[in-house]
Amino acid sequence: MKPDETNIDETHRLIASNKVEGTAVYNRQGEKLGSVYNFMVDKRSGQVQYAVMSFGGILGMGDSYHPLPWNALTYDTRQEGYVVDIDKQRLQDGPSYKSGQEPRYDRAYDREVYGYYHIPYTM
Amino acid sequence: MKPDETNIDETHRLIASNKVEGTAVYNRQGEKLGSVYNFMVDKRSGQVQYAVMSFGGILGMGDSYHPLPWNALTYDTRQEGYVVDIDKQRLQDGPSYKSGQEPRYDRAYDREVYGYYHIPYTM
Repeated sequence: MKPDETNIDETHRLIASNKVEGTAVYNRQGEKLGSVYNFMVDKRSGQVQYAVMSFGGILGMGDSYHPLPWNALTYDTRQEGYVVDIDKQRLQDGPSYKSGQEPRYDRAYDREVYGYYHIPYTM
Repeated sequence: MKPDETNIDETHRLIASNKVEGTAVYNRQGEKLGSVYNFMVDKRSGQVQYAVMSFGGILGMGDSYHPLPWNALTYDTRQEGYVVDIDKQRLQDGPSYKSGQEPRYDRAYDREVYGYYHIPYTM
């Protein structure tokens, strides 16, 4: 991403999907936890339900994907990344999958993930 | 995209962002109009506001990007693509931009695009 593309793809309100992919995720202490691999969108409503984080070696876990409820993320314009109030160890121990072993993302899985992060499940 | 990845990335409700990118868009007559290039997401609410269509030569327009209000698209599981009730010529004449000339996506632009497609603007 070239610096001059920042102002093109991004406004105060909207962000391009292909820019969310790859955006850094930090904890409250400003420590980088990983980045957004992709996100899961409700086809009909257009509501983003999960941001799927990847830890490409950052935590020494290889290709590990950790879905986070979208509500758990806050966009920080200063850091140009997302901030989550989640401990690194807790994230590491949370629901995850390896490449090629994606879950079905059914209601039971929703309850598992939302429950783990104590996010009210209202979808 | 390998055929066996379809069931992995996709459920009845959710679709992966990097799969929406590239999904075909058809009109009511089943004619392919183009495909989704990316989409614009409200950073805070996680609501998808626009699907940006590209006409990579399909309409002979080169790299032309046409944002459509998300509400204008219906996902058709049978066709595995989005359907819009928009005439090809009307789409071709609609608000668009060339690569590297992305709009600011401010409120005035919203009103222009939503107005053009007669979609109520409620964001």
